[in-house]
Amino acid sequence: MNKEIISSILNGDRRAIAKALTIVESTTDKDRALTESLISKLFEYKNTSTRIIGFSGITGSGKSSLIEEIGKRLLEQNKKIAVLAIDPSSPIHGGSILGDKTRMSTLSNHPDCFVRPVPSKFNNGGISRSTREAVSIFSAAKYDYIFIETVGVGQTEYSVSELCDCFVVNLLPATGDELQGVKKGINELADIILINKADGALETQANLTVNEYKKSLMKPIVSTSIYAPEKIEEIIKLIDNFFFTETETIKIKRELQNQQWAKSLVVNDLEQIIDAVTEKSKIANPYHEKKQLIEKLKKLI
Amino acid sequence: MNKEIISSILNGDRRAIAKALTIVESTTDKDRALTESLISKLFEYKNTSTRIIGFSGITGSGKSSLIEEIGKRLLEQNKKIAVLAIDPSSPIHGGSILGDKTRMSTLSNHPDCFVRPVPSKFNNGGISRSTREAVSIFSAAKYDYIFIETVGVGQTEYSVSELCDCFVVNLLPATGDELQGVKKGINELADIILINKADGALETQANLTVNEYKKSLMKPIVSTSIYAPEKIEEIIKLIDNFFFTETETIKIKRELQNQQWAKSLVVNDLEQIIDAVTEKSKIANPYHEKKQLIEKLKKLI
Repeated sequence: MNKEIISSILNGDRRAIAKALTIVESTTDKDRALTESLISKLFEYKNTSTRIIGFSGITGSGKSSLIEEIGKRLLEQNKKIAVLAIDPSSPIHGGSILGDKTRMSTLSNHPDCFVRPVPSKFNNGGISRSTREAVSIFSAAKYDYIFIETVGVGQTEYSVSELCDCFVVNLLPATGDELQGVKKGINELADIILINKADGALETQANLTVNEYKKSLMKPIVSTSIYAPEKIEEIIKLIDNFFFTETETIKIKRELQNQQWAKSLVVNDLEQIIDAVTEKSKIANPYHEKKQLIEKLKKLI
Repeated sequence: MNKEIISSILNGDRRAIAKALTIVESTTDKDRALTESLISKLFEYKNTSTRIIGFSGITGSGKSSLIEEIGKRLLEQNKKIAVLAIDPSSPIHGGSILGDKTRMSTLSNHPDCFVRPVPSKFNNGGISRSTREAVSIFSAAKYDYIFIETVGVGQTEYSVSELCDCFVVNLLPATGDELQGVKKGINELADIILINKADGALETQANLTVNEYKKSLMKPIVSTSIYAPEKIEEIIKLIDNFFFTETETIKIKRELQNQQWAKSLVVNDLEQIIDAVTEKSKIANPYHEKKQLIEKLKKLI
């Protein structure tokens, strides 16, 4: 079965891709074993020219619509596109990416585009685990662009920046004090910054925001709007430029990402063993029992 | 030194508490070793009657002001209160709890109240690690209430719900579709739900929201306002009631939390070792090299 699904994925077969995505998202023992053999094989067919782009911004900043517009342009250039929409499932924020099925209607229905909502579980690393595997699948299937869309929440962003080549941050027009708080974090994570909704009443404000950021950030930054095709074109040029000029940075990023991935696989395996051990123990004092747990673990791994 | 700081903490000495908090938040090897001996000792003096209350809600929902009002009432009842304000440091959201120093001015200046911002690092488990230790310190110092304030973002909330006895979710008036998304998550996490800002123009809307939620949620829910002392009193009664009626639930929660804590201590130790191993390796294929990494690890733990 594995051999067949692998050659189908390499041929870009959508049903095989969908099946593989379901396997890697599953947490059953059987599917985890399948994931292991599937992804370690697909990894050998990784397409190094696939561009992995993180796309982050708060709810309401217009990420999905922007990805839709960027995607449409890329489809015109005969590119194949995958969109992984991570839903951080915040019980308090509510607003779910998955809830809104009308988003990215053009991309969702195009044969060269695959839109996939990625459920994020409420656990550490849960966001990135199956996402890494999904990226491997689309890369092996020779997709040109993989967009990882995420709403702007600290840990999720950070996890996503650990998965992609290029991290795009989508902001809204703002000024003064509002800008101060975000600058440091953005400087750390972003490769490209967009100030969205630069149309109608907000256009002037958006351009002022760009100028404000330019004073202190050494990153490419432009104002943008889904209603301005030339501005969408500009984003694509910024992305192209990033991939042309930052080849060395991307190479180093990818090496680090493989290290992090290997680490997370080891930690996930160990966590399962630790869970089995701790579930049976009544812990009187966590710090006292840490050493005993490590001793037990040593025998079990 | 340790003996002295421990007896000072047990006596409620604020300087000793502040010093201990700084130690547990530090990540140097020396302070980690100190944390281990300090917390494993303090854990023995854990005050089981200390009430640990998670307090979550989105930015702008008025959490800090509510905690200030609840806190003032509890101080009138001669209770000692700690507030741990977790700052998820989102580079995209920006808005920082720590940035606003005027919050909780009464509590911040009261001798029976200790307000502490808890930095959250951009790593898995970073949010809860030093917070657990901080809770142990205030519990040993015989504080009656520990409020863990957090903005509503998926992983943070979940981490906080793993630390507290009672999880309070603070929402704003809303109706219809907006409610659908949040219901499931809230039902899972919340022990008490507050619909805040039930005053002025929003009062009617807040009461409608309460009724809407009551239809589908089996949790205590009230509308509230910092301008209505009787409503603040009602929150305190709900909390009291939770601790009187849910003793068995709380006992089970605390046992699970100790298991999770022990697990996270083990995982943190292992992660440091794994980091050291993976940093030196060039990973060609993460899935292939997982087993070799586990073998190496076995020799090192």
